[in-house]
Amino acid sequence: MGSLVRIEAVDFFYLAMPQVLDIGDGSQDMVLVRLQVGPYVGWGECEASPLPTIASLVCPMSHSACKPVRDSVLGQPLDDQADIARIGDAVRANSLDLLQADHALSGIDIAMWDALGKRLDAPVYLLLGDDRAYPKVPYASQLFGETPEETGEKARRTRADGYRAAKFGWGTFGRGSVEADAAHLQAARAGLGDDATLLVDAGTVWRDVDQAAARLDALRECRVTWLEEPFPAGEFAAHRALAAIYGDIALAGGEGCHNARQAEHMIDHAALGFVQIDAGRIGGITPARAVATYAHQRGVMYVNHSFTSHLALSASLQPYAGAEHDTICEYPVEPKSLAVEVTRDHIAPDADGLIHLPARPGLGIDLDLDAARRYVQDVEIKVGEQTLYRTPELRD
Amino acid sequence: MGSLVRIEAVDFFYLAMPQVLDIGDGSQDMVLVRLQVGPYVGWGECEASPLPTIASLVCPMSHSACKPVRDSVLGQPLDDQADIARIGDAVRANSLDLLQADHALSGIDIAMWDALGKRLDAPVYLLLGDDRAYPKVPYASQLFGETPEETGEKARRTRADGYRAAKFGWGTFGRGSVEADAAHLQAARAGLGDDATLLVDAGTVWRDVDQAAARLDALRECRVTWLEEPFPAGEFAAHRALAAIYGDIALAGGEGCHNARQAEHMIDHAALGFVQIDAGRIGGITPARAVATYAHQRGVMYVNHSFTSHLALSASLQPYAGAEHDTICEYPVEPKSLAVEVTRDHIAPDADGLIHLPARPGLGIDLDLDAARRYVQDVEIKVGEQTLYRTPELRD
Repeated sequence: MGSLVRIEAVDFFYLAMPQVLDIGDGSQDMVLVRLQVGPYVGWGECEASPLPTIASLVCPMSHSACKPVRDSVLGQPLDDQADIARIGDAVRANSLDLLQADHALSGIDIAMWDALGKRLDAPVYLLLGDDRAYPKVPYASQLFGETPEETGEKARRTRADGYRAAKFGWGTFGRGSVEADAAHLQAARAGLGDDATLLVDAGTVWRDVDQAAARLDALRECRVTWLEEPFPAGEFAAHRALAAIYGDIALAGGEGCHNARQAEHMIDHAALGFVQIDAGRIGGITPARAVATYAHQRGVMYVNHSFTSHLALSASLQPYAGAEHDTICEYPVEPKSLAVEVTRDHIAPDADGLIHLPARPGLGIDLDLDAARRYVQDVEIKVGEQTLYRTPELRD
Repeated sequence: MGSLVRIEAVDFFYLAMPQVLDIGDGSQDMVLVRLQVGPYVGWGECEASPLPTIASLVCPMSHSACKPVRDSVLGQPLDDQADIARIGDAVRANSLDLLQADHALSGIDIAMWDALGKRLDAPVYLLLGDDRAYPKVPYASQLFGETPEETGEKARRTRADGYRAAKFGWGTFGRGSVEADAAHLQAARAGLGDDATLLVDAGTVWRDVDQAAARLDALRECRVTWLEEPFPAGEFAAHRALAAIYGDIALAGGEGCHNARQAEHMIDHAALGFVQIDAGRIGGITPARAVATYAHQRGVMYVNHSFTSHLALSASLQPYAGAEHDTICEYPVEPKSLAVEVTRDHIAPDADGLIHLPARPGLGIDLDLDAARRYVQDVEIKVGEQTLYRTPELRD
């Protein structure tokens, strides 16, 4: 392993599209994380509001359990998996009362795994203890069309592009009539054909069980595999009540969990069939892996949540790459140019429509820094006379 | 009620002690919130890291469910209690993926209640539907001494000051030997005398049940009423296991909950005897009130969490002011000068050692703005060419 190396720099970058639209598309900006670990560079991404996340990295201490995230990371030795766990525990303890810290930690944890993989010349999934990465069936994750016709056209295109599974979400779904939702679902099913997997994301739109239950006939008729986030994540009782009504149509959720325990509580108490974890929110690959292990013990399917770059996609796949029976994965198919251009490498479906994690060190994804630089937002944060943050140079 | 008024300004201020110490004392800084609601000014306080909280107020939109908190508040009509609930719901939906938003909302919700109370000429507890505010027994909330002798001296002083209850927390407790902890507990009990209530806050120090269980004999010998936060809040199974071992010594927790559902889940699954809610973290008085109602249905005692100013103290007491059987309340006794000087009014124990909420409009606490100004930290946040935040003038 060579001698001990330390985390010498922790840099956050705020990248954004020139124009951010008021739609449910999380690929319009990102927090890119760069760690310098001895001679190695690790990259990560937080699925988070950039400005508060940067602030959580550099803010002044409030008290002993409310410290800036950087204090628990900078200068720490990073020689093995145990160091990553230790640093994560330190952030959670030292920044206990800093709510945004879990989102900041997410990108740091991902970048630590990337750096460690590069140092040990191994993909992250091997470092996690898996023997191999199984290919996954990507579901083409996209927003509903504005009209059923547009949804149908998106579904046909998805099918023509070779996808065996698709998810439609957000937009007007759940906000209008049951009939309007049914028309979207029927258009999606017709466009995909009979043998494709159809998933639906309600985007936490409802507040009571009846609204969700009213969509059951349409979901069943269109053979929807899961309904995702019918309610806000904390509404355990509503989830349980709906699961009892839905029967064979599974509930999916968990993307908003910002620590492993929350996801475990959803598994235990919200009757999930699928738990969806975003490594960029839950605190990184480390807690995501813990949730995957827990889900398998409880007979719940683990699925990644990912809606931005292929750096984030790779990170989201690592925790369950070795889980042969978790066969499906989220795959964003209409990301904004930022999310596409920021990486040189992309994880593309093969001739059979399956995707494979790169068998390369770390996350196996090289960045395109020239492209990324075009999206960097210059940020400056001053408290008193002190400049706590100024966007650093984006380099390898 | 007069004509409709709107929220015309939402201003956050970062106040801090000249020097912030690395101790478990949350009174060293604050986010002070000022709302201009027609001709009325409402004040609130977030129990939160100031810089990320300010950033969550003003940050650029990331997507439709990740908007700056201010967007859901500024310009909204605020005529009655339903408006407060509606604005809170809007923040939670529009800032769903902005983790820090719940802490920002907390101070805003508190300030909305203060403004509405001033407008309707009624204390907040009346607006919440309670007939009256019952006096509470304040427990003198403080840190353990560095030595058992110092803890004993603090306990004697607390008793001499007329308090009937005291809580000691953080410091070295739980970090050394069982014997060292026992010595602190014995000193605290000896200093308080036999008839006072003794509470202990472990500050989430342990990671397994055995460490906590090893303190049982000392806790019992010293007749400790509750042990607070033995573990991180999400460790439901550990809480349940410890409660089974502890028997008559209750567990207390919940201060870190940043929405009502999390607190309800702790009540349901973490075997709490006391649920402790900080209105400055959970999203304000509105969700705190919901938790109080839920706790009463489940036979769990509700207690405020408060460790900063008397503005925050008043806010933390309103949700259960009318609950006659929840007799105890947290009362910080060694706040830093910032937390003392920021208000002109203070909620002091009467001759019987009880405290009373002011029977005045809103929170009933006037600020001392001249004093507060001395603690204001000048903050400037720029993204690109745009200055998103610059500390505004602090005025009435």
